[in-house]
Amino acid sequence: LKNVLIVYAHQSSGSFNAAAKDVAVEVLKASGCTVDVSDLYAINFKATATVEDITVGVKDPDCFCYAEETKLAWERNELSSDITKEQCKLKKADLVIFQVFPMYWFSVPAIMKGWIDRVLTLGFAFSPEKCYGEGFFKDKMAMLSFTTGSHQSMFSANAINGDMNITLWPLQNGILHYCGFKVLAPEIFWAPAHVSRSECSTMLNHWRIRLGSLMSEKPLVFPPLDYFEKETGFQLKPEIIEKFATKEYGLAVGVHQGKKVPLNNQIAPNQNFTTSCRT
Amino acid sequence: LKNVLIVYAHQSSGSFNAAAKDVAVEVLKASGCTVDVSDLYAINFKATATVEDITVGVKDPDCFCYAEETKLAWERNELSSDITKEQCKLKKADLVIFQVFPMYWFSVPAIMKGWIDRVLTLGFAFSPEKCYGEGFFKDKMAMLSFTTGSHQSMFSANAINGDMNITLWPLQNGILHYCGFKVLAPEIFWAPAHVSRSECSTMLNHWRIRLGSLMSEKPLVFPPLDYFEKETGFQLKPEIIEKFATKEYGLAVGVHQGKKVPLNNQIAPNQNFTTSCRT
Repeated sequence: LKNVLIVYAHQSSGSFNAAAKDVAVEVLKASGCTVDVSDLYAINFKATATVEDITVGVKDPDCFCYAEETKLAWERNELSSDITKEQCKLKKADLVIFQVFPMYWFSVPAIMKGWIDRVLTLGFAFSPEKCYGEGFFKDKMAMLSFTTGSHQSMFSANAINGDMNITLWPLQNGILHYCGFKVLAPEIFWAPAHVSRSECSTMLNHWRIRLGSLMSEKPLVFPPLDYFEKETGFQLKPEIIEKFATKEYGLAVGVHQGKKVPLNNQIAPNQNFTTSCRT
Repeated sequence: LKNVLIVYAHQSSGSFNAAAKDVAVEVLKASGCTVDVSDLYAINFKATATVEDITVGVKDPDCFCYAEETKLAWERNELSSDITKEQCKLKKADLVIFQVFPMYWFSVPAIMKGWIDRVLTLGFAFSPEKCYGEGFFKDKMAMLSFTTGSHQSMFSANAINGDMNITLWPLQNGILHYCGFKVLAPEIFWAPAHVSRSECSTMLNHWRIRLGSLMSEKPLVFPPLDYFEKETGFQLKPEIIEKFATKEYGLAVGVHQGKKVPLNNQIAPNQNFTTSCRT
């Protein structure tokens, strides 16, 4: 039995995003999962990271540092209840699905960014010592499921919005993978507002079918933590650079090593680095 | 005489970010600019994009679409006053500086994302027909000025956080350049929390000196709009692909064409594409 948390951000129950969320709830429950939904607009989730997130006095009010102060508050059980409630849901989740319209300016909307800023507390969700492959949530999976405003063609490496893989890197590497999550390939619904109802149905149906075996999917591949050397500020180890020296493509979108960006690195699970043949 | 708007997001007046903002106000005023500051935490800026942003009834409450409804409201002067106030400041600004701790999860904090989501209204700040080089704000400049939590070494193309240029692309291309802004190179304050007071002073001093001639800086270079063909979903025109076929590097971080990502494309103004020699 698996637990799924859907963090959902759309203002309207009549939206395509709502339909995508509903399909996920339905299919996952039918396959025996328990499903929790955090409907951020419905609960009027507070987006901004403020001193009020700490229920008791702060340590240094004159030079308030949100990360440090909330870490202390988390240790002392002094975080505001809306945060701890989400942290409880997150703790028991095996899979977290972020269901949104993230292409609100090439990222998630503010209310979801607020969930990320406030719920993923230092100490609870990450620490500089326990990040990426060693992150606290390494036994959990997470994924983005989102609609875009533009057609797929505009998000290619030859098009004006640029490669969608680049846009996804800060979200999937910098947030999800940073906390240790195994990141499943994103479910991208291309421009539902600009296509026919039947194309929308086709997209939802694809999602429905995928959901049936989501739990057994292979995650996206990120360079493992032990490729990097702590002493040099987490640079690739010389032997790793050497090992992949003749490869045409870099190891990941961000860790591209001055080489070509590996194709669909943030959209589809590649094969293992050592065996991959991405030409 | 130039008008500058500083959109500022930090909770504490004792922070390094506050100092960076204060230096900007001081130097820009001394050089004859008028300076407006939107201190988002101080004014408790609403971050979430909700139906309350429209003062009169909405067109389609059952299937509320934020972008469309706020476009209508903007045309009819029916946006909430906190939004129109910011839009007035933005309208008269020649330069907008976003002063933040954006490496809140590899992006801007939710309160600033909220400013972006809510103030940059469809019709006012962009339209699908008037975007990028033809965007409404093409006579304005904008830039990011931010602190990081990690050292610079961790944001290289060989390091675990990945190339900072990749992280900046969605923000600088997808938000600033999308609205037409000429984007000045970002001012990055690397890990002020982890370096000595004197190194912090050095960084602030660098910023102070740069501010003196900020208005005459050359902006970052993005592929111009006429490189793309509207009919093919804004793909690069065949003749442009042909023209740059022998180049080792792609045109931009996102528009990398399956080639190497051009070095420091989002951090420093490159030379013109045709004459550049980036080896």
